[in-house]
Amino acid sequence: MDSSSTFSVTYKIVADSLPAAEEISESIAVEQSVEMPPATVAKHLKGGIGRVERIKRIDDTSWETEIHFSTSLVDGDPVQFLNVLLGNSSLKPGIRIVDLDKSYLSSILDGPSFGISGIRTLLNVFNRPLSCTALKPVGSSIKELADKAFQFASGGIDLIKDDHGIANQSSAPFKERVATVCKAIEKGEQKSGKKTLYFPNVTGSPREVTDRARFAKETGADGVLISPQLTGPAQMRDLAASDLNLPIMAHPAFSGSIVNHKQNGISAEIYYGLIWRAFGADSIVYPNAGGRFSFDLAECKSINLMCRDKNIGMAPSFPTPGGGIERSTVHKWKQEYGPDTIFLIGGSLYQHPKGLEIAVTEFQQKLVNNE
Amino acid sequence: MDSSSTFSVTYKIVADSLPAAEEISESIAVEQSVEMPPATVAKHLKGGIGRVERIKRIDDTSWETEIHFSTSLVDGDPVQFLNVLLGNSSLKPGIRIVDLDKSYLSSILDGPSFGISGIRTLLNVFNRPLSCTALKPVGSSIKELADKAFQFASGGIDLIKDDHGIANQSSAPFKERVATVCKAIEKGEQKSGKKTLYFPNVTGSPREVTDRARFAKETGADGVLISPQLTGPAQMRDLAASDLNLPIMAHPAFSGSIVNHKQNGISAEIYYGLIWRAFGADSIVYPNAGGRFSFDLAECKSINLMCRDKNIGMAPSFPTPGGGIERSTVHKWKQEYGPDTIFLIGGSLYQHPKGLEIAVTEFQQKLVNNE
Repeated sequence: MDSSSTFSVTYKIVADSLPAAEEISESIAVEQSVEMPPATVAKHLKGGIGRVERIKRIDDTSWETEIHFSTSLVDGDPVQFLNVLLGNSSLKPGIRIVDLDKSYLSSILDGPSFGISGIRTLLNVFNRPLSCTALKPVGSSIKELADKAFQFASGGIDLIKDDHGIANQSSAPFKERVATVCKAIEKGEQKSGKKTLYFPNVTGSPREVTDRARFAKETGADGVLISPQLTGPAQMRDLAASDLNLPIMAHPAFSGSIVNHKQNGISAEIYYGLIWRAFGADSIVYPNAGGRFSFDLAECKSINLMCRDKNIGMAPSFPTPGGGIERSTVHKWKQEYGPDTIFLIGGSLYQHPKGLEIAVTEFQQKLVNNE
Repeated sequence: MDSSSTFSVTYKIVADSLPAAEEISESIAVEQSVEMPPATVAKHLKGGIGRVERIKRIDDTSWETEIHFSTSLVDGDPVQFLNVLLGNSSLKPGIRIVDLDKSYLSSILDGPSFGISGIRTLLNVFNRPLSCTALKPVGSSIKELADKAFQFASGGIDLIKDDHGIANQSSAPFKERVATVCKAIEKGEQKSGKKTLYFPNVTGSPREVTDRARFAKETGADGVLISPQLTGPAQMRDLAASDLNLPIMAHPAFSGSIVNHKQNGISAEIYYGLIWRAFGADSIVYPNAGGRFSFDLAECKSINLMCRDKNIGMAPSFPTPGGGIERSTVHKWKQEYGPDTIFLIGGSLYQHPKGLEIAVTEFQQKLVNNE
């Protein structure tokens, strides 16, 4: 096996001594490549075994270990890349990915097809954060959802996405719902005098994702919402690479187990900000600090930085904090996160005593005003 | 929303008092259904909010809470079912699924199309555990892999699967590899006088999975290996429901983060033994106790029981413990797990000083002998 070309992955591991850290590192290098005792690997194939390049102590029980893998293990296949990153090692405790080779990643994946600038161009808005809300709750009729969409658009919101729990239920079947909501948003746009983008949820089985995304495009929706952890990330990549030419908002449903446990899985900045970006997410929804989820401010800021990093060979994605942002805290978050952010507010807009249109107008003013 | 028909999900949650447990339970019931403050949900839609049915103390800091969700949240969509189970709640700490409504599950998913009896029929072996090994390592040429497959089949092994890290690398491209390995196994079968099933790895992007599975079928492979956590489980369901009529072995690559952390995700017995079974896995590979992975014996036995449970409206799946089973411990595991088990041994067969054919012959004898 040609081992001359490699890519690096950095794991944070739990070990109580350097020898233990070395042993774990070697076991990852083997597990994620040949996956058999090195003594049983023929000599000419030993170059295919991962190589431990560097071990660094972080504190008494944790270490960072950088492992180099031959690119021939992957040969350009993004799904196999994920497998080499963490496949079997996901099943062992105390192994977490905290960094990986960005230039290699961008050599096998194209990233977002719109990115921050592409979405800004669709809206003709270039200097401020964008506003976003969710159509909900599940169970509402098409008329109820369309009426809310009209009010949101009338207030001038930048983006409306479906709630990630609205799929193809009989209460509001996908096709009729998307067609009706698109029309309602058009009417709202006439009132507001500005563009509102609509991203219906296309999460489903492979064929459903493709069919729904095509229908969304043909019916005038402006993008799609997908939960890559439910569909598999390659489904998102295929959408981004398709001829549909639709921006993609990625939703973190079901992905918490990958990022949430500090000693396992993949760090949130790498998984959302780098891997999902590489698989084609133009906007990346994540649970904001201070809300009802468990990310802290530093974690959120790292995701933002990674989404926007210009030193990676792919377009930047819009970080899209959501989940418990309040109308009253928009100003604070705007200062904290800066203009290249989509703020996703659901519940707090629905709670406005004067209704959705006024709620959005106020939300919008807070983003437009250059305070 | 019609809330008359419901399904139950049982979560283990972390809380230090009954009021705290109640609060968390209510928050799951809302998060996994309407996902907005109940005060903002219109009266006629409140029936769509999950209902906390029962809270039981487990110990000082953990509780089991049973929540009933309206089936109208799912309306028969298996991907949306996963979303209702754990979507956003995966992002909160201390919430783990430990049980769910089996009769509802079997009403929306068909389960394995072969199951234990179907795979036994293919092999004409009815009263003993089955033997399985993996073709590896990645990087080997097609000739090297085919030569190993020939030796395994000559020894009379029941099943050969590709290593889950062998995809479509240039060292052994999928189509030529599968065709050549199928022929080598045929030759081995002539020597052994018995059937050996071959399951090539079809994990990849949606189109690749479909193309590879079709090619495998046309070329004479007997089943397929897939890693559902990498492809998305709906991809496996679509394969199982397709006209290909191929048994499916599910590999746990990348799924460890879902099952491994005792306070998050989904218990291994429910995720592998019930959910993957429902999504169509005829054989379910999991990391065995005592090997290099972290499951304990009780966990493995629960997976076995769940895979084989006959009181669920779908065919039983073959539990397939692997990852560090030794030749020398086969007898012990046979006693421990019983006949309806596929034992997957990789490294230990490759380490046999007398070669693969003899290694398999001995492995096979241990399974056949009625000790």
